[in-house]
Amino acid sequence: MVWGANTGIGKTLISAGLAAAAARSQVELLYLKPVQTGFPDSCDASLVAACSGGRVSYAEHAAALLSKQPPDKPAQPDACSVLARTLFAWEAPTSPHTAVALEGRAITDGQLCSLLRAELNSFASKHAQHAQHLPAMALLETAGGVASPAPSGRLQCDAYRPLRLPGVLVGDGRLGGISATISAHESLLLRGYDTSVVVLMESSPLHQNARALGSHFGPRMLIVSLPACPEPPEGPEPTGAGGASVVDANLQQWIDSTRPQFDEILAHLQQQHQQRVAQLASAADAAQAQLWWPFTQHASLKDQQRITVADSRCGEEFAVYQADAETAAPSLRPQYDACASWWTQGMSAELQPRMVEAIAYGAARYGHIIFPETAYEPAVKLADLLLKSVGKGWADRVFYSDDGSTAVEVALKMAFRTYMLDHNIGAEEAQAAIPELWVVGLQNGYHGDTLGAMDAVAPSPFNGPKQTPWYSGRGLFLDPPTVCMVKGTWQVRQAGASAPPSDTPPVTRFPSREAVFSRDRDGSDLHQAYRRQIEGQLDGSPKPLAACILEPVLQGAGGMALVDPLYQRTLAQACRARNIPVIFDEVFSGLWRLGRVSAAEMLGVSPDIACYAKLLTGGTVPLAATLATKAVFDAFQGASKLDALLHGHSYSGHAIGCSAAVAALQIYSDPTLNPSLCAPASAGRNATCPKAPQCKAACGRLLELWDGAAVKEVSLHPRVKSVMSLGTVLAAELEPAGGGGGL
Amino acid sequence: MVWGANTGIGKTLISAGLAAAAARSQVELLYLKPVQTGFPDSCDASLVAACSGGRVSYAEHAAALLSKQPPDKPAQPDACSVLARTLFAWEAPTSPHTAVALEGRAITDGQLCSLLRAELNSFASKHAQHAQHLPAMALLETAGGVASPAPSGRLQCDAYRPLRLPGVLVGDGRLGGISATISAHESLLLRGYDTSVVVLMESSPLHQNARALGSHFGPRMLIVSLPACPEPPEGPEPTGAGGASVVDANLQQWIDSTRPQFDEILAHLQQQHQQRVAQLASAADAAQAQLWWPFTQHASLKDQQRITVADSRCGEEFAVYQADAETAAPSLRPQYDACASWWTQGMSAELQPRMVEAIAYGAARYGHIIFPETAYEPAVKLADLLLKSVGKGWADRVFYSDDGSTAVEVALKMAFRTYMLDHNIGAEEAQAAIPELWVVGLQNGYHGDTLGAMDAVAPSPFNGPKQTPWYSGRGLFLDPPTVCMVKGTWQVRQAGASAPPSDTPPVTRFPSREAVFSRDRDGSDLHQAYRRQIEGQLDGSPKPLAACILEPVLQGAGGMALVDPLYQRTLAQACRARNIPVIFDEVFSGLWRLGRVSAAEMLGVSPDIACYAKLLTGGTVPLAATLATKAVFDAFQGASKLDALLHGHSYSGHAIGCSAAVAALQIYSDPTLNPSLCAPASAGRNATCPKAPQCKAACGRLLELWDGAAVKEVSLHPRVKSVMSLGTVLAAELEPAGGGGGL
Repeated sequence: MVWGANTGIGKTLISAGLAAAAARSQVELLYLKPVQTGFPDSCDASLVAACSGGRVSYAEHAAALLSKQPPDKPAQPDACSVLARTLFAWEAPTSPHTAVALEGRAITDGQLCSLLRAELNSFASKHAQHAQHLPAMALLETAGGVASPAPSGRLQCDAYRPLRLPGVLVGDGRLGGISATISAHESLLLRGYDTSVVVLMESSPLHQNARALGSHFGPRMLIVSLPACPEPPEGPEPTGAGGASVVDANLQQWIDSTRPQFDEILAHLQQQHQQRVAQLASAADAAQAQLWWPFTQHASLKDQQRITVADSRCGEEFAVYQADAETAAPSLRPQYDACASWWTQGMSAELQPRMVEAIAYGAARYGHIIFPETAYEPAVKLADLLLKSVGKGWADRVFYSDDGSTAVEVALKMAFRTYMLDHNIGAEEAQAAIPELWVVGLQNGYHGDTLGAMDAVAPSPFNGPKQTPWYSGRGLFLDPPTVCMVKGTWQVRQAGASAPPSDTPPVTRFPSREAVFSRDRDGSDLHQAYRRQIEGQLDGSPKPLAACILEPVLQGAGGMALVDPLYQRTLAQACRARNIPVIFDEVFSGLWRLGRVSAAEMLGVSPDIACYAKLLTGGTVPLAATLATKAVFDAFQGASKLDALLHGHSYSGHAIGCSAAVAALQIYSDPTLNPSLCAPASAGRNATCPKAPQCKAACGRLLELWDGAAVKEVSLHPRVKSVMSLGTVLAAELEPAGGGGGL
Repeated sequence: MVWGANTGIGKTLISAGLAAAAARSQVELLYLKPVQTGFPDSCDASLVAACSGGRVSYAEHAAALLSKQPPDKPAQPDACSVLARTLFAWEAPTSPHTAVALEGRAITDGQLCSLLRAELNSFASKHAQHAQHLPAMALLETAGGVASPAPSGRLQCDAYRPLRLPGVLVGDGRLGGISATISAHESLLLRGYDTSVVVLMESSPLHQNARALGSHFGPRMLIVSLPACPEPPEGPEPTGAGGASVVDANLQQWIDSTRPQFDEILAHLQQQHQQRVAQLASAADAAQAQLWWPFTQHASLKDQQRITVADSRCGEEFAVYQADAETAAPSLRPQYDACASWWTQGMSAELQPRMVEAIAYGAARYGHIIFPETAYEPAVKLADLLLKSVGKGWADRVFYSDDGSTAVEVALKMAFRTYMLDHNIGAEEAQAAIPELWVVGLQNGYHGDTLGAMDAVAPSPFNGPKQTPWYSGRGLFLDPPTVCMVKGTWQVRQAGASAPPSDTPPVTRFPSREAVFSRDRDGSDLHQAYRRQIEGQLDGSPKPLAACILEPVLQGAGGMALVDPLYQRTLAQACRARNIPVIFDEVFSGLWRLGRVSAAEMLGVSPDIACYAKLLTGGTVPLAATLATKAVFDAFQGASKLDALLHGHSYSGHAIGCSAAVAALQIYSDPTLNPSLCAPASAGRNATCPKAPQCKAACGRLLELWDGAAVKEVSLHPRVKSVMSLGTVLAAELEPAGGGGGL
C-alpha cells in the first residue's frame, strides 16, 4: 500500500518508480488506484503504466467516465508485466468524499474493500496459474494523505483497515515535512498497519528531512531519499494515443537516475514480505513448541491444522493465515470470531479505533500510577460511571482488581468480614475458635480459577484433585430450576434428583419469556414452594453461611443455563433476611450482555457486592471491579490498618485499563454510538425493542438481537431439545443422535 | 500551547488573534516563543505584540542576536496587557535542530522545559501579586509541525511532554489538510496531550476541511474555520521603530474580521481550563467518596492532603495537583515516583513513548484474540524472548495469566500435579484418600493475595481470619538467614528463635557482598550446617511436601530481606533431590531488578517452575507468565482434556500486554537503549560494572546503581541498623528512636 504523508508529494511517482523497478526485475506487478479524482485528466494508473511499460485498464465505475469505450477487458496479463488499474473515479479534482457530494456515485468502505479483495485474489490466482514460481506484487495507491477521507467520508486509514496491507509511506521532503511524515506514520501505527519504508523527495539540502527521520525511526525503518522530480512544463498533461500518459524528458531522466533506490525499495519490500510469510508459516509450530495454552490438551494438538494463526483482528473478524494445501501458497482469510474472543468483545469495527485511542492516550498520559491513596481521572471517572450504572441505587464503593477471579476473591473477603461483624464472629478474643464459613451458591456455578473462587463452587472436574489439590467446596450448593424454550414454549424446569420438593410441578409453561421474568409471579404457589424449599436448605446447612454467591439470571461457563429468576430472587431475599451478604458475580452477565446494564436489574434484587470484568474494558486489557454497599465498606473502617482490606495487585486500578473502561462504558450506553440500544435514534427499529409493542419512547434497553420467530423455529427442529435467547446470548441444547445429553 | 498541523499554516496569526482577543477581554496574556529560527528577520513575538498592542521582550539567548542592546528587562507587566517573549533564537530560517547544527548554541530538552517552567511560574506569581482575581493566560507557540524537531533533535511533542500543557491545534485548510490535521492530532494524543480546539484558515470553499474535521472529531472538539489571511506584499517585512513588526492593512482587516471567532476560542479555552482545574480540585473528594483503595485504612484518610491527585506521569515524575494553602491558586508540581509505582516501572522518560507505541499498535492490530489454540505474533514472540532469557537452560513452556498472584496459583497447580505423578499419588482409584499436600517455603515469604497464593505462606496479619477466613497455612515455613551490611561490613545473620541449630554461628562476616554470593562457600562448614538443618526440617514435615516455593535472593513484600543465597541454594537442592518441584516466584526479583535477568541466575539454581510479572510489561498493564520445564508440562499431557491444565482467564495472553512485554524485554536487554547495562557502549562507565574491576568486556549485567562508598556511609549512620543494596534496590533498616524494631 502506498500511503502519503501529504498530498502533492509524489506518491504516484514513487509508485511509478517501483513499477519500473518491478518490470526490470521480472516481478509481475498489479498497480491499483482504488479511488481517482480529477479523472480522466488525472489518471495515476496511466502515468504508472507509461513509466513502467505497462498496460492500463479501468474497472466499470471508472470506465464509465471515459469519453470513449474503455479498452476491452484486459487479456490475461503476460508474466512479468505491469498492469495498472483504476477502480473508482470522479471528475472533480478534490477529496473523494467531496467529489461524491458533487457527483454522486457513493461507495461504502465495505464495497471498496470487497472489490479490492476480489481484484487482489483474482491477480493472485491468475498469477499462480501461469507463473506461480515467479515473484509478483500488488501496489495499492491511496489518495491524498493517510487520513484523507475515503469516498464514504471516513478516513482512508480506517476504511482500509480490514485489509491491513503492509505499506510504503511517501514522506514529505519540504520544510515541516519531518513532522508531517512522523505524524502520518503514527496514524498508521494507531490502526495497526506495518510500514517499513519511508521514501521522500528532498528539494533543498538545507532541511535534511531523511536524516532526521532516520534518527527518529532508527534501524526499524528503511529511509530512502530521492532528488525532487522537476515539474512538467505548464499546460495540460501531454497524452499519447488513446489518452495514455506520456513520459516527458525530465520525468524519464528522474526515473532513470533513481533506479538504484527503487531497486533497493523493491528488494526490501520483497524481503519484508518473505519475513512476514515465514513468521506466519512458522507461528503454529513455534506456538506448539513454546506456549502452554489454558484448558488445552496439548497431546491432542498434533495436527497443526487445529491451531488458528491470527495475523490481526478487525471488528468481529480475524485475518487468519492459511497455506494452500497443494501449492503451499500463503493467504490470509477473514474468520468470524465466533467465541467473541471468550466473551470480551463489545465493539464494532468502527468503534475499535476509539478504544485504541483511549488506550494510547491513557498509556501516554499516565502509564501506571500507584493506586492506593492516589486519584487520577480514569480511575475516579470509571468508579463514577459504575456507581451510576450497574451500581445505581445500592453500591457505594468500587474496588479494582485484575480479572473476574480476583474480583470474586475480593468479594468473598468483603462478604465474610461483613458477616463476621454482623454476627459477632471473630472478635479479637476468639480468633482461634472461628468456625469454618461457607457460602451458599448454585450447582454449575463458576466464579474463576483461583483457589478462593474455586472453593466457592461445587465439586467438578475443574477443581478435582488432579487440577486443584487444595480445593474444598466450602458451600451449600443448591440445584436451581432453569428456563428454556422447548418446542416453541417457554418453560421452567425443576432440577433433577436433588432439589424439587414434592409440591413443585416438574415443568411450568409460560406464554412468553417476559412472563417468566414478570413480577406477577411473586406470591404464586411456585414462589411459596421455592421459599419453603430454600429456607429448609439454608436451615440445614452444617456450617454458618457467610455469603450468598450467584451468577444472576444466567450461568455462563456452567452451560448458558438461564436460572428461574423467581428462584434466584427468592434465594437472595432469604439470605438478605438472614443478614447473609449477597454477591452477584456479573463478570459474564453484566454490562448489557443480557440486554440490561446489569442482570441484577432484571432480577429486581440488588446485591451487597457485585463483580464486573470481561466487557468492562471493551475487549482490550484485563481489569475487574468489585462494587460494594456502604455497610460492606464500613465493615473495614477502623482504627488500625489491619482492619483495612489488605488485598491488592501491582497494577490495581491501572490507568490504561480504566481509560479503556471509561471509553467502553460511554460507548455502550450512548445510543448515537451503540446502534443496539433502544433510543430516539432507533425509533424506526422499535419492533425489536424487548418492551415492544408497549415501548413508545426510548427505553434504553438493548434491542432484541435474536429474532423471536427464528428462535422458535430453531426450538422446533427435531434435533434441538431446548433453546434459550436473551440479550446477546443464544444457546441451543441438542439431542445427540446416539442418546445421552449435552449442551 | 499552540501546535501546528504543518509549517506555514498561520500558527502565529492564530496566536496573534488570540492575543488580540485577550487584550479586548481584559485577560492578561503572556505569549512565549520558546524557539525562534530565522531571527531577528522573523520574530513571531513581535508580530503577536503588534497585533495585540502588547510589548516584546527577549530572554538572554535571543537578545544576544539583536544588533543593538535588548530593551531593558521588561517592567512589571501591566494588568491586562500582552507581553510577548522570545526565549531561544537562531538566525538560520530552518528547523531548530538544523539551526543548532549550523550555529551552535545547543539547548537540551531539559533546559527548555526548565526555562519554560520558570517563565510560567514567574508570570503566574507576578500576576497573582497584582491582579490575582483577573483572568490570565499563557500562550506557548511551537515551531513547525507537532513532530518537528526541537533544538535537541528530538521531536517537539516529546520534548514538551513533561509540561503536558493543553493545546490549540492550528489545522491545515488546504487540499490534504484534513489528513495533516488529523495525523497531527493523533501524534499529540499518542503523547497524552489534550487538544480541544482545531482552528484553520480555509482558502478554498471546495475542500471544506473544517466540515470533514467536525464530522471526524464530533462534539469532543471545537472546530473553528477562518478565512485565509491575504499574504503581505513581497519584500522584507515592514518593521517599525526598534525593529517592531508593523501590522499591514490586510492583516489588520483580517484581525478585525475574525474577532468573533477568536473571542469564541478564548472563551472555550478558559472554560476548558476551568473544567480541568475543577476536576483536579474535586478529584480527591470524589476518590475518597467512591474508591476503595487496596491496603488502605480509609478511616485514617480524613485529611484530604494525604491523597495524591496525579494529572499525569512523565518518566519518574507525576504531575501532582495542589492548591496554594492561602489563595487556593491551583498548580501542578513534579513529584518523584518514589515507589516506582509499586515496583512496576523500568522505563526512562525517553523510552515511555516506545511503550505507548507498542501498546497502541498491539491494540490496533489485535485488540484481543482468544488465546487457547491460537497463535499471534506478540504471544509467540514473548514466549520466545522469555525462554531465551529468564528461562534459558531450563524452561520449556510459557503459561500466561493476569498477575503475580494468578501466576503463583498456576505454578502451584503445576507443581502439585508433577509431584503427584512422580510420587504416584492421586491415581484415579485412590482420589478420596489423597493426603493434604504442603509446600515448603520461607518465613516472610509473599506470593500474592488470592487464596491459593496466601495458603502458600506462613500466617500473618495479611491472611488472618479478619482478612482471609479461608486461609490455612499449608506449608512448612523455614526461617532463613539473611544478609545485610552492618556498620560497613557485610554479614550473614542467622534467623532468631526458631531456626538456627546450635552448630551455626549467629553472625558470619564477609569482606564484600560478592563474597556472600561466591560459589566458594559451597562445601563450607556453614553449608554443611544448613544442609543438616534443612534435611532435618524436611524430614520432620507432618505432611507430604509437594512444592518448594521461594522468592529467590530477595524477599520483596516481606521487607526487602536479602536471604543468604547459600541457604536458598541448599534448600532448593535438597528439594530437587527429593523430587519436590521448585517454584521461584520472580515476580519481584526477576527481569534485572537485582542486576541480572533473573535472581535464579544469581543463585546458580534453576527452578522447575518460575513466575514473572510487574516489570514484565514495562510498567503499563497487568500480565504474568509462569514458565515450566518439559517434565512439568508433560505431567499434563494425556488422552483426556481433563488431564490438561484447566486454568485460564478471559484475557489470558492478551495481545496488548504481550506487545508491551515484547517491547519492554527488548528495551531492557538492549545496551543501545538501556544505559544501565554493562556493554560496549558503556565501556567508559565500567567502574560501576558489578564485576569491576575484573570486567574487561561487556558482561551484560546491570551496572551498579548504588555507589558502594555511599551505601557504606549510610550503614555507618547511628540511626541505621543495617543496609542492603543490590541491583535497583537499596533498603535501610532503621533504629527507631524509642527502641523496638522495624524495617
